[in-house]
Amino acid sequence: MTISKEAIVAAHQRIAPFIHRTPVLTCSTINSFAGCEFYFKCENLQKIGAFKIRGGMNAALQIPESDRKNGLATHSSGNHAQAVAFAARMLGVPAYIVMPETSPKVKVEAVKGYGAEVHFCAPNQQARESLLNEIVEKTGAYFIHPYDNYEVITGQATAAKELIEDSPDLDFILAPVGGGGLLSGTLLSAHYFSPKTAVYAGEPEGAADAILSVKSGKIEKAPYINTIADGLLTSLGERNLPIIREFVKEVLLVSEDEIKAALRIVYERMKIIVEPSCVVPLAAVLRNRSLFEHKKVGIVFSGGNVDVTKISSWFV
Amino acid sequence: MTISKEAIVAAHQRIAPFIHRTPVLTCSTINSFAGCEFYFKCENLQKIGAFKIRGGMNAALQIPESDRKNGLATHSSGNHAQAVAFAARMLGVPAYIVMPETSPKVKVEAVKGYGAEVHFCAPNQQARESLLNEIVEKTGAYFIHPYDNYEVITGQATAAKELIEDSPDLDFILAPVGGGGLLSGTLLSAHYFSPKTAVYAGEPEGAADAILSVKSGKIEKAPYINTIADGLLTSLGERNLPIIREFVKEVLLVSEDEIKAALRIVYERMKIIVEPSCVVPLAAVLRNRSLFEHKKVGIVFSGGNVDVTKISSWFV
Repeated sequence: MTISKEAIVAAHQRIAPFIHRTPVLTCSTINSFAGCEFYFKCENLQKIGAFKIRGGMNAALQIPESDRKNGLATHSSGNHAQAVAFAARMLGVPAYIVMPETSPKVKVEAVKGYGAEVHFCAPNQQARESLLNEIVEKTGAYFIHPYDNYEVITGQATAAKELIEDSPDLDFILAPVGGGGLLSGTLLSAHYFSPKTAVYAGEPEGAADAILSVKSGKIEKAPYINTIADGLLTSLGERNLPIIREFVKEVLLVSEDEIKAALRIVYERMKIIVEPSCVVPLAAVLRNRSLFEHKKVGIVFSGGNVDVTKISSWFV
Repeated sequence: MTISKEAIVAAHQRIAPFIHRTPVLTCSTINSFAGCEFYFKCENLQKIGAFKIRGGMNAALQIPESDRKNGLATHSSGNHAQAVAFAARMLGVPAYIVMPETSPKVKVEAVKGYGAEVHFCAPNQQARESLLNEIVEKTGAYFIHPYDNYEVITGQATAAKELIEDSPDLDFILAPVGGGGLLSGTLLSAHYFSPKTAVYAGEPEGAADAILSVKSGKIEKAPYINTIADGLLTSLGERNLPIIREFVKEVLLVSEDEIKAALRIVYERMKIIVEPSCVVPLAAVLRNRSLFEHKKVGIVFSGGNVDVTKISSWFV
């Protein structure tokens, strides 16, 4: 194992001054719908509105000062962009963020609000990476990958660590899976801090790469892309896949209708704003009711940065 | 004074087993926008999604058992309907709710979900009252008025009582004003439990009856009705007006654009779902910045029952 228990404990102490200890919320109505007992770790209420600050901050703090003095750089359509921009501001260095020109305006504004320089690119992986390389070459900024980075994974692990501390004796934890940063961190924290807790991943049918990658052992592409869970579009990282393969109980797929129904339940019953990606694990529990009935189920609500002008379009 | 300090304390004990003690949340970003320190009493996270459960439950518990055995009845487009339906279920008696046929579907469903019988009427005061009278006559159910009722006012007062207990030394409290139940209760609690705290009301320009009524001393109608704050459309109650006139510092008006801007800030920054009516006081602070600068400002977020299919229409 490349990430030790001690590394996660150290990361948690390292980032604690910069993050919120987010609340774990419960909702009796949602419990009664699903027939189990939910514990929602609300990273939508985290600084920058998402768990990504944990990994971004941990990675930034681990870079030697001489290497980070020219700034931090990354490519991201959203929350990791904000995380790196926020971390750079905390460290008093510049941030260079490559964002696809299709990024939600609210996320672009937030990144700029932290004082970062935003560079737009075409909405594909190649355009992102080539523009990023150009910027890194020109500025000498330090690149922090959104998920395929051990310091990032270690930082993301601290969300599940807090959930386990605040809600002991969980039978299950579920996390959504996109690039695999949150999921691999969650798996490591469950393994080290609550070994009897099994971890499932939730993935949209319309971005079903992780389920294939876990099966084949190679990084696979999704057969097709069609989901409102826009945080989960990417394929798994090289460093994330082996951790996920070793520890995940199963990747559970959900349909778009199931994601929308779960999102509506959270908005209407919990009165909190979460991103569509957040509710993929909840949708997975509602779809696979018998697996979770009468159990204590922790869910990491990953973020809350949504474009409010789009919310209603998810419910027509 | 018709409602004593002791009556509010007793009401609080009476309803405590049936309600949540809702959290008081803060948000550093919104503080920095306004230049003051906010304490948001989150009744959107209350049972039934609104403070109305406090007054409805207090009133229902005060009705002699012989008078309530035939059930409870009310007319309401929304949150008070849910409050009475919930109270009736708690007491094991039927509920008869008259709702305008234009009521948001989510509120109708919630009322039915508590087992109440819903009767639809045309969307005007006369139709509401005449259908209600018909039902009360036929069933012998006990009518609980949404705001023009001392037990209801006493119940609503407990929200500000909790806010004062949890956030001492507030310079100001603001509440929205519709029929005046929440506002008169808030004024009484500030008067009894924190006399140095001044209370302002927030009212939409497009439902500006309270500001006129406070001036004239009579129940006035709004010059025109046009607001997304659909909880604040009604005129003041007979029992509410004298309390408001005696204690309110001032009624502050806000425009629709100001309401929408405040709503967006809460959704995007606090990541919680509140009703448009909720943010009228916040909009009033943002409009009258100099009155509140550097002060500790408590705001009662009254409810969170919104139709998610409509949210985006507020932001185009």
